[in-house]
Order: sequence, then C-alpha cells, then structure tokens
Amino acid sequence: MSRHIITLTTDFGPQSAYVAALKGVILSIHNDARLIDLTHAIGPQDVRQGALVLAMACPWFPAGSLHVAVVDPGVGTARELIYAEIEGRAYLAPDNGLLSALTRRARPTMLRYLRNREHWLPEQSHTFHGRDILAPAAAHLSRGLDPAALGPEAERLVELSWPEPIPGDRALSGEVQLVDSFGNLVTNIEHEHLAAIAAEPELRIRCGPVTAVGLQRTYGERPAGHVVALIGSSGCLEMAVVDGNAARRYSLGVGAPVLLTW
Amino acid sequence: MSRHIITLTTDFGPQSAYVAALKGVILSIHNDARLIDLTHAIGPQDVRQGALVLAMACPWFPAGSLHVAVVDPGVGTARELIYAEIEGRAYLAPDNGLLSALTRRARPTMLRYLRNREHWLPEQSHTFHGRDILAPAAAHLSRGLDPAALGPEAERLVELSWPEPIPGDRALSGEVQLVDSFGNLVTNIEHEHLAAIAAEPELRIRCGPVTAVGLQRTYGERPAGHVVALIGSSGCLEMAVVDGNAARRYSLGVGAPVLLTW
Amino acid sequence: MSRHIITLTTDFGPQSAYVAALKGVILSIHNDARLIDLTHAIGPQDVRQGALVLAMACPWFPAGSLHVAVVDPGVGTARELIYAEIEGRAYLAPDNGLLSALTRRARPTMLRYLRNREHWLPEQSHTFHGRDILAPAAAHLSRGLDPAALGPEAERLVELSWPEPIPGDRALSGEVQLVDSFGNLVTNIEHEHLAAIAAEPELRIRCGPVTAVGLQRTYGERPAGHVVALIGSSGCLEMAVVDGNAARRYSLGVGAPVLLTW
Repeated sequence: MSRHIITLTTDFGPQSAYVAALKGVILSIHNDARLIDLTHAIGPQDVRQGALVLAMACPWFPAGSLHVAVVDPGVGTARELIYAEIEGRAYLAPDNGLLSALTRRARPTMLRYLRNREHWLPEQSHTFHGRDILAPAAAHLSRGLDPAALGPEAERLVELSWPEPIPGDRALSGEVQLVDSFGNLVTNIEHEHLAAIAAEPELRIRCGPVTAVGLQRTYGERPAGHVVALIGSSGCLEMAVVDGNAARRYSLGVGAPVLLTW
Repeated sequence: MSRHIITLTTDFGPQSAYVAALKGVILSIHNDARLIDLTHAIGPQDVRQGALVLAMACPWFPAGSLHVAVVDPGVGTARELIYAEIEGRAYLAPDNGLLSALTRRARPTMLRYLRNREHWLPEQSHTFHGRDILAPAAAHLSRGLDPAALGPEAERLVELSWPEPIPGDRALSGEVQLVDSFGNLVTNIEHEHLAAIAAEPELRIRCGPVTAVGLQRTYGERPAGHVVALIGSSGCLEMAVVDGNAARRYSLGVGAPVLLTW
Repeated sequence: MSRHIITLTTDFGPQSAYVAALKGVILSIHNDARLIDLTHAIGPQDVRQGALVLAMACPWFPAGSLHVAVVDPGVGTARELIYAEIEGRAYLAPDNGLLSALTRRARPTMLRYLRNREHWLPEQSHTFHGRDILAPAAAHLSRGLDPAALGPEAERLVELSWPEPIPGDRALSGEVQLVDSFGNLVTNIEHEHLAAIAAEPELRIRCGPVTAVGLQRTYGERPAGHVVALIGSSGCLEMAVVDGNAARRYSLGVGAPVLLTW
C-alpha cells in the first residue's frame, strides 16, 4: 500500500497555527510526504459533520491514501485514537464516531488502537493529540511502518447513530443531515429510497416552510430564486434555492425534518 | 507542454467536501499530479468575480500550468465545458464567461469542447461536472493526453461584457470591479488610462461618499484611517483606507461608479 | 540546507488572488518547489498576530524549511525586507516585527536585507513586495542561491514589545495574547511561570467576568459549557469554554488582562 498521499481534515479553522503544526510534524518525520488539505472548516467539535464530510470526500481518493482526521472534543480523556482500513484507504482519527459514516458503507478490514508510544512525539500535550500522536503516526505509516506496530487490534469503532428515513403511507420522512457551502440542504434520503417514487406525478418535498413539487435533474432547470429538490452529487436528496442559499433564506439547518408525500 | 501543476479555483467554499472530491478524482487518475489551491472562496455562482481572479492570478504561473476553474451555476444544462490555451497556459472550465477576463488580454490559441465521454468519469451526476468531467480531463491531460482528444474544436468562448472606462471633459468615469480581501476597491481604470493624468495637480477620485485627492504610490504614505487612491498590484486604480476596510466602511462594492476629474 | 519546502503565511484572506500570485511566481522560477499553505487568515495588517502564529507553527517544520511571511502594512515605504535564519530554519519577511516572536526564543544566526535587485522580479509594484521581491527570493533560495547574495548583512531585526507577566503578592498578572480558532484565550503566561503554583489549592484564574478555579489537564475534564483554565498545546496558560467559544461568549480578546491569585 503506497501511502505518500496524506490528507488532513480538521475543525481547526483556516487561520489556525494548529494546522501548520500538523504539517510540520509530518514533514519533519517524512520529508517527502504529500500533504493535501481536505478541509479545516469542520464546525468546532462537530464530529457528526466531520464524519459526513469524510464519507463524501475520501472515497474519491486513490487506494492507499492515508486520511488524518482531527475533530477531537475528548482529547486527553479516556477516548482512544484509532487506525482503520476501509475500502482500501487508511484512516487515523480519534475513536469518537468520526469514521462511522464511512463504516456505514463498508466494514473496516483492519482496526488498531494507537497505544504504542514509540511512534508518538517524545512529549505529548494533553490537548493536541493530532499533532503529538496522529501526525507522527501518519508520517511513520507513509514511510512504510506496518500498521500492526501502532498498537493492539480493536474490535470495533465507536459509532454515531445515523437516523434512517422512515416510510409512511405514500410518504417518507427524513431529515437534513448536512448544509453545504452553497446553503443546499442535503438530506439523509438516498437515491435508492427515491427510485420507486421519483416519477410520481404528485411528489411533494417539504422542509419547514419550503415545498418543492417533483424532482429536478439540476439547479438551472428553474429560474434563480426558485426552490428545487434534486438528487445531489453525493447521491442524496437535497433542497436548494437556485443561485441562492436555502439554509440562510429559510433558517433551516441540520436536523430539520423533511417530508415526502405522493 | 508539461502540465504537472494543476491549480484549482472554485466557489465551493473552504469547508467543502466538493473541493476534496476534485482532488481525489485527479489523484486517482494521476497520482503524481501536483495540486495547487488557487482559491475556493469565489462568491457562490459569481462567474464575474471568478473570471477576474483567474485573470489576476493565472498569468503568474509557469507556462504549461493547467488551471481548473469551477464556478458553474448552469451545471447540467445546455452550457458546454471547454478547454482553452491562453498565453501558453491551459484552462478547463464551464463555458460561461469564466475565462473571458483572460481572453480580453490575449486570444486563445486552442479551444475544445469537452464532449468525448471517454475521458469523463464512467458515471456523471447532473450537478457536479467539476468532479465528473473537468477533474478527470485535467488528470488525463497532465498525464499527457492530447487536448484534441477531449472533443471538437470550439470557435469562440462565451464572453461576459466588461465595461470600459468612459472619458469625459477633463473627467473619466469607471466602476469598482472587484473588492479584495482587504476591502480595497479595485476599479476598471487601468494604469494606461492614468498615464496622462496621474500628475494633474487637481486630480480627484470619487466613489460614493469617498474622495481622494491625487494618487499615492502606496498605502503607508498616509496615516491609518485615511483614504488613498493608487495604482494597485494588478495595474488598476484602487481606493483604499490605510490599515482599514474601504468597502465595509463606506458600504461600497462591485459596480459602484468611480469618477476622476482634474 | 535543503529548502524545497516553502511555507506561506499571509493576511491576504483565503479568497485572495494575491496568494495565488505568490505561488505562481515561486513556481515560475522553481518548478519543483513544494509549497505549503501555513495560513492566509492572519488579521489584515495584524503583524503581532502573524508573529505569534509563526512562532507557534514554524518550529514544528523540518530544519531547512523556508518560511515566507507577508503581513506588510508598510509595503513600499522605507521598511526593509529581511532574510533570517533562526534555529536552522530560514525566513523571508518584511522587517516590521513579524519575526520577533521567533527571535524571543532564539537569536537569528544570519540576517540579510533584501536589497540586491538581481533576484527580484524585473518590475516591482509599490504595493505587493511579497509577490515582486519575497516570492522570487524564496524561489531562488530553494534552488540553491547563497543567502549572502540577497543583500548586505543586517545587525538586528525590528522587534515588537512582548509584555511579560508581572508577579505580585501571591499573584501573577498577564494578558490574552492570541484568540485561537476555537475562541480559546491563549495568554502570555507560560508553563514555566506556573510550575511553582499549579498545585496551589486556592489557585484562581480571572479574565474579565470569567473565573476558573485550579488548572485542568484538558478540556473534556469538565462538562460542556464550563470554563476551564489549562496549559494549552503551545505551552501557555489558556482559558476555554468546554465545547464552546470563550472569546465570543465573554467578549474577550487580545490584550484582556488575566489575573492569577492563590
């Protein structure tokens, strides 16, 4: 497994010296590592959002990529740090659910707790294990370290609960699970759920004060300012305002209920 | 033409999993591609701003660079995707005007529509052609694919209208065309327009409630908080508040008229 | 000294074409340079913040790294541009104090003014020396240019004043010197100052309306919403709201006085 590509996903914010410290530690151990910023704008301590972003982004990377994720409100407490292999890619993260949107789709083929201090920085703070443990582990792995050297096998990851859409009588209810940077409301209703009903002539999609009639193929099929529902690029139903920001305009966010009727 | 350097410019926002998907697709096809984030903070659907930023930034890159730009409100509609060569650099973008600030300065030497599905991802969404068509095209080009293989020749790009300054009687009127991240008001009046009048003793530059008298060489020639007009680093007249934010302080933005008199 | 790694730190903002211009200039001169974004979100003209971020981040990078920093309110005025070597790493910056949090910890082993125009861009604007002077200097250095060729030796850097904590009668007073992206209040009180008093049973840390009793090891030792004081990952005392934003909640920022009593 070639692991020269290391991606970084954090809630540190783009202005953060903490991101830079991660990069510096990795490059100090493995000068040839290729660092890719995945994103540093996960909401502070928002493990759920981090999990969804990882699941949307990482599967597009080549096999053998190594993805380091740091959204770690429990840093320094009893929570473990974990190494996982999922669908041919490797992950390093706190074991707090951050990988559990990925593992909904595919079971991990290897799990290890990071307990072997040999591959950590010599001194560790209590508040920044991303820098002191995950970053050096990533660098050593990308230089060829056997993941088994990181620590003992883990049996399972910590999992968040991921609400499933609930079918009703000619109805399906779900919820907004992510607001993207355009303000589009990405729901937990996936295209498989929609296959049977997408062509229903009376299909209505409601979220708070917003109703869309039928599914569009893409945004530009309606004039600017109109509400559309469509299957977005992640394969999930989303509601959007054409050339606008649905979340802001209607004050809707993660957790808002979505109801389909037909 | 060596095209190992691929830059990315989008309106996806820094927190976006969509940027990561672009990177993953490119690296999956061409593991050695060198990705450079140009910016992901173009205003949502703001093709005009994207066009100006590309024209300010890309000409500084080495010949042979490949610039991928995704500001694509018409994704999935009839708009084309295009490959262009301009001044020795290559561009991939939706054909919606995004390259037309570049082509004001130099005619493209090659234009191709991206219609050959052979170099797309096997499945394409209707809402994310950046990931499904532009990114794989970029990766294949950087591996040496002949651009002619992308699709048929195009005769011309879609162009935005770019207002020119209007000369008057000892006067010149223009407008703000970009607000930079310091809040400086960058106008469409270029240094060539100013050559003959820069030394006029009575030169006044007005924009909304703001007046500057004469041109400064640089910001620090006036005390903090003062308004200055000067020729900025892009060669255009700009108005700024020393150590402050002119756009915010005076509620001025793109399209605000600017009047020079002398 | 290998200098293929070049990091970039600016106050240009993430949406800025100016960042891209820096990158383009460097790559045009040295196609193999490896560019690492340190951060582009230093507050506009905030030399002090830039200095602290550099001091927190750069020492984590490998020996031989080259760090380019552009927070330059005095661009085009009489201020010098400087090359410095500090603890085995190289720096290029305006000589306005931006390197002076680094030099508090270690004296520079080489200082040169950038006066030799041979290694600048052929034409220089008055408002963007980062692009026109620092970027080409960085590229030439990373290709192996002897730093002595940049210009004459400098005797000392411009230094900002860095307030020291003031001891009192069973008391120590300091101040907030940085607000991190989590809203944590990072003070100028370092772990050495705390060694003797950390275990005092009556230790109280006050900042504005906020009081913490005793030091925690890490954030998660108190419930969400509680105020904690702890030694953060930079080795300084910080105050934080668990899973919250202390700076926003209490309207506290840089310069706020901090008082320890025991």
